Amino acid sequence: MNKEKYPILSRIDSPEDVKVLTSEECRALAQETREFLIENVMKTGGHLASNLGVVELSIALHRVFNSPDDRIIWDVGHQSYVHKILTGRKERFDTLRTPGGLSGFTKRTESPHDPYGAGHSSTAMSAALGFAYSDAISKRGNYTVAVVGDGAFTGGLVHEALNNMRKNLRLIVIINENEMSISKNIGRFSRHIAKMRSTRGYLKTKSFTRKVVSRIPLVGKPLFRLIRSIKKALKNSLYGSNYFEDIGLYYLGPVDGNDEEAVEILLREAMSSKQSCIVHVKTIKGKGFAPAESDPAGYHSVAPGQDPDCLDSHDGQSNFSARFGELLCRMANSDERICAVTAAMTDGCGLKNFAHLYPERFFDVGIAEEHALIFAAGLAAGGMKPFVSIYSSFLQRGYDSILHDIALQKIPVTVCVDRASLSEKDGPTHHGIFDVSFLYGIPGTEIYAPCDFESLEKFMDLSLSAAGPVFIRYPNSGPFSSACECLVYKEPYLRSSFAPGERLDGIIITYGKIVEKAIEASFALSDRGFDCGVVMLEKLKPLQIDAVMKYIPDEKIPVLFLEEGIKSGGCGMNFYEKAKKFPTMLERDFEILAIDDNFAEAFSAGTDIYSSAGIGAEDICNFMTGHRATAKDCPECADIDNK
Amino acid sequence: MNKEKYPILSRIDSPEDVKVLTSEECRALAQETREFLIENVMKTGGHLASNLGVVELSIALHRVFNSPDDRIIWDVGHQSYVHKILTGRKERFDTLRTPGGLSGFTKRTESPHDPYGAGHSSTAMSAALGFAYSDAISKRGNYTVAVVGDGAFTGGLVHEALNNMRKNLRLIVIINENEMSISKNIGRFSRHIAKMRSTRGYLKTKSFTRKVVSRIPLVGKPLFRLIRSIKKALKNSLYGSNYFEDIGLYYLGPVDGNDEEAVEILLREAMSSKQSCIVHVKTIKGKGFAPAESDPAGYHSVAPGQDPDCLDSHDGQSNFSARFGELLCRMANSDERICAVTAAMTDGCGLKNFAHLYPERFFDVGIAEEHALIFAAGLAAGGMKPFVSIYSSFLQRGYDSILHDIALQKIPVTVCVDRASLSEKDGPTHHGIFDVSFLYGIPGTEIYAPCDFESLEKFMDLSLSAAGPVFIRYPNSGPFSSACECLVYKEPYLRSSFAPGERLDGIIITYGKIVEKAIEASFALSDRGFDCGVVMLEKLKPLQIDAVMKYIPDEKIPVLFLEEGIKSGGCGMNFYEKAKKFPTMLERDFEILAIDDNFAEAFSAGTDIYSSAGIGAEDICNFMTGHRATAKDCPECADIDNK
Repeated sequence: MNKEKYPILSRIDSPEDVKVLTSEECRALAQETREFLIENVMKTGGHLASNLGVVELSIALHRVFNSPDDRIIWDVGHQSYVHKILTGRKERFDTLRTPGGLSGFTKRTESPHDPYGAGHSSTAMSAALGFAYSDAISKRGNYTVAVVGDGAFTGGLVHEALNNMRKNLRLIVIINENEMSISKNIGRFSRHIAKMRSTRGYLKTKSFTRKVVSRIPLVGKPLFRLIRSIKKALKNSLYGSNYFEDIGLYYLGPVDGNDEEAVEILLREAMSSKQSCIVHVKTIKGKGFAPAESDPAGYHSVAPGQDPDCLDSHDGQSNFSARFGELLCRMANSDERICAVTAAMTDGCGLKNFAHLYPERFFDVGIAEEHALIFAAGLAAGGMKPFVSIYSSFLQRGYDSILHDIALQKIPVTVCVDRASLSEKDGPTHHGIFDVSFLYGIPGTEIYAPCDFESLEKFMDLSLSAAGPVFIRYPNSGPFSSACECLVYKEPYLRSSFAPGERLDGIIITYGKIVEKAIEASFALSDRGFDCGVVMLEKLKPLQIDAVMKYIPDEKIPVLFLEEGIKSGGCGMNFYEKAKKFPTMLERDFEILAIDDNFAEAFSAGTDIYSSAGIGAEDICNFMTGHRATAKDCPECADIDNK
Repeated sequence: MNKEKYPILSRIDSPEDVKVLTSEECRALAQETREFLIENVMKTGGHLASNLGVVELSIALHRVFNSPDDRIIWDVGHQSYVHKILTGRKERFDTLRTPGGLSGFTKRTESPHDPYGAGHSSTAMSAALGFAYSDAISKRGNYTVAVVGDGAFTGGLVHEALNNMRKNLRLIVIINENEMSISKNIGRFSRHIAKMRSTRGYLKTKSFTRKVVSRIPLVGKPLFRLIRSIKKALKNSLYGSNYFEDIGLYYLGPVDGNDEEAVEILLREAMSSKQSCIVHVKTIKGKGFAPAESDPAGYHSVAPGQDPDCLDSHDGQSNFSARFGELLCRMANSDERICAVTAAMTDGCGLKNFAHLYPERFFDVGIAEEHALIFAAGLAAGGMKPFVSIYSSFLQRGYDSILHDIALQKIPVTVCVDRASLSEKDGPTHHGIFDVSFLYGIPGTEIYAPCDFESLEKFMDLSLSAAGPVFIRYPNSGPFSSACECLVYKEPYLRSSFAPGERLDGIIITYGKIVEKAIEASFALSDRGFDCGVVMLEKLKPLQIDAVMKYIPDEKIPVLFLEEGIKSGGCGMNFYEKAKKFPTMLERDFEILAIDDNFAEAFSAGTDIYSSAGIGAEDICNFMTGHRATAKDCPECADIDNK
């Protein structure tokens, strides 16, 4: 680290180093940290705006609390970069979101300062309650702090945790109000939180704390208490109500979360209160970086190598999400029953334009996947044609809503499963690899994996007349273009690189984005004189077993079912369950190459995520050539995996 | 129906008949309905206390609204009996909770008066919002009414829906405060709801409405409005705050929900308000039946044929749930890290005594499965040894919590999966048939199915030293006793009716409660000269494939994997994925008999639930005898299924 550029930050190797800084040094540290964040995240990609917003909060937390004895739990975890920088991970920060590098979220295996990992929203309070109770039962004196954005309150889990809060715990929940989760927060609760600010004279508190209290450090704390008790006495007549106080919780705030000293004072007050506390801080997402302050949604997550001064997060016009949005707009134009439902992912799901054109039929329900699905079930039962678009890994939250509300009642809801592939940058919490397995096990579901936009449109149309739920899954990319060019033989829901009856040495059956890997492997094998055919399915359930079996010749050549998804209950197992009844499968070398009881984590630098998951080109090659090949035997495949 | 016993009720064939009744007739109808409920539910079994509580509310709803044009949605649905009785289903009421009979919950296929089905809690508001929006978009003038118990507010889903409420919908949400969900409600929100009652002078409102307003029917409504507006003006200074009003919703109440006329007035007021409304009613669970009023938890659900005057709901001392509770108490006595977590099922999960003995380490979190699991993850990460007990069908709600929070982080939480079998009485919403499939697909899980209490204890002990999550699944019954007696050969995690090498005509591999069915089928087959061996597994994942394969001889006798669970991704498929690599499986007649893409619904009277699901003794027989047998060929098996 450049000591001249970062004179303070370069000295910070642990929270202890943060604690000894003077006020002035703290301000300098905040400034340096911002510059360090911008410099690095623009290179590595990652969450920028939310981390710029919590620089002072993170510094204050590490000055007041003793991590890791005190446990600091960041909800979702994408705003933990500053925390990582301050807890001995700054030198590895250029490895952020790379295989074997720092995770873009908190992670237990990464540091003792990450007591709880995440990636999905709204879990921190539940986990923090667990920690705080375990400390209380074990009579430990440490604190647990959960930092939760106001956006997380759109998720029901937070309310389940709130309902279970107990007063006498050393538990501090910091509500970080930045009026944004990923895009602008929606819903009644956020407005209620925002109202707490305005009715409680946020600006006055801020200036008062700064100008008066913090300048009299010795009497600061008692004075602060006095102010608070006077405010409390006047509250019921002068101020509006406060949900947290109404349900019996001790509430402090709001305070300017970008004022490090003010936050510190409030945190010490919370600590000394000897009870569970809600501390309300108000931060500015993107703080200190003009482009991000003015477009915090655009800078929520940036791609690697983006020019900070001309960021364009809307370049995805040619990907499945964008095309889904376009097609849905067109359908909505001619059919007034078409609705769109998203769970806080309007942009990510390609629905920005739909929201603009059809506001009456567009529903962003917040980070509330279960509600999104059941609400859609209600819309459909009421006669509408809802399309719900949810990322594969977040759809996991809706398992029972799909099962109990949609499938069991045979309600025709179309669910577009976005980000349905491995996520190299975000890692295991965001892999879209479970949907096929868990959806396959739910009776009456139909599952499609379009390979291009024509198929996407076909399946969207088809879902309109379906009797039950339809799931259309696609990755965060465009059509599997290079692959599709090779798959010249087409019949309904199936494409192949060869015609039935063609002489081959082996066959790969697959679906989804990994078909690209299959084609690459087949090229590599072809270079070695091994003719490998590829069959790509677009209809996963119900499986057109007869159509697929036409491509499997009587010759006992090896057949591989390749799947970018979990093996148990996936399409491969279901394929084989049906295929094994065909005589042609007898004594056939058949294998399912799928993600087998692991979370597809890339543990070391330079690792290809497919290889880490055990489904790389080399694995394909190994199977086809009789389990003989190693990286040395087949440098072509090793190259594919490592490129 | 006895016209002398039920002079009014016998005339009620549709809601129209309810609308024309006089006040006096309404009171008589309520009385008759109560008697009818008690008489019938004591015979059929089912939910008694909650239905006795909503007699007047149900009558009022059908007098004020026009079902099915107006949609009445009952949360969970177990309190919809009166609604069913009033909507043309009273003559079939003696078929309640029997195969092909009336469902114990609302069900779309049962009546147009059931616009939305349920079985799991907290979904009604989300669905109702969907209906209300679809009506608004389609410019229909009908109303949607959701009836939600205060217990449902412990579930996060309700808060997700509340956050998405819009003012200008014809949507009325009735909060039925009975201070109970199944047992006493816990948590902060319930207390807040209850406080709304006390600060708003519930008793005064009640007597005022009854004595004054309802006796002046012509001016009743305007007068009521006046009172309301005066009250509203005084509210901020005189009364406490109200969450629903704080988040901007129109709130009416509370009113005595067992006063039919008072409820009617409030509902008409809500209707005429031309905006979305929260209507707060207060009912007494078990109302009108002394034993149920004094023990509403005991009478929440009664078994068929129980003597109403000496109901004993605690006779399950010899079932798995009870023994689990006993064992956990014993463990907790010697290990201070042991905690118990339940989601509103203290009694059902056998934890009543634990709650009494170890209150500091017992956590009933409400109907909040996701929170229960993540909270347990926090407890475990903090050093405790949490045991979470959740019914299989409700664990579906926690899929992502298990995946993202527990398994991905390899946190050692033990989950006892109760009610892990088909549910003959409650039907598809309560079948415990998905857990093995969805848990198998989550990396790093261990799954056990103890067949008796010794095994249960062994697995509970074993889980204490596990490195990751352990799932122990068992049905709502005692040990598979008759079956276990036949399974004389034991080795770790595996029992069999025969020793390896014994000559047989066929083999069934199975696990869980259905082993009883397998043994019965093997007896029936034996009577016909067909020697069928049974292998029962207790360790489902990881599968001890080598140990199991020892029981499969070289002779190509048929092997059946029998599973009381969903086929896709179940233990059978995973078994075969491993077994097919063994040469002995080549050209073997092997089949998985599991629940194949259906919800195991019994459509006609007298149907055995196993047969309905396609996994009855006859199905076993059919496979073993070469797909030749029919009911006529094998009367023994048909008998087993129909007994």
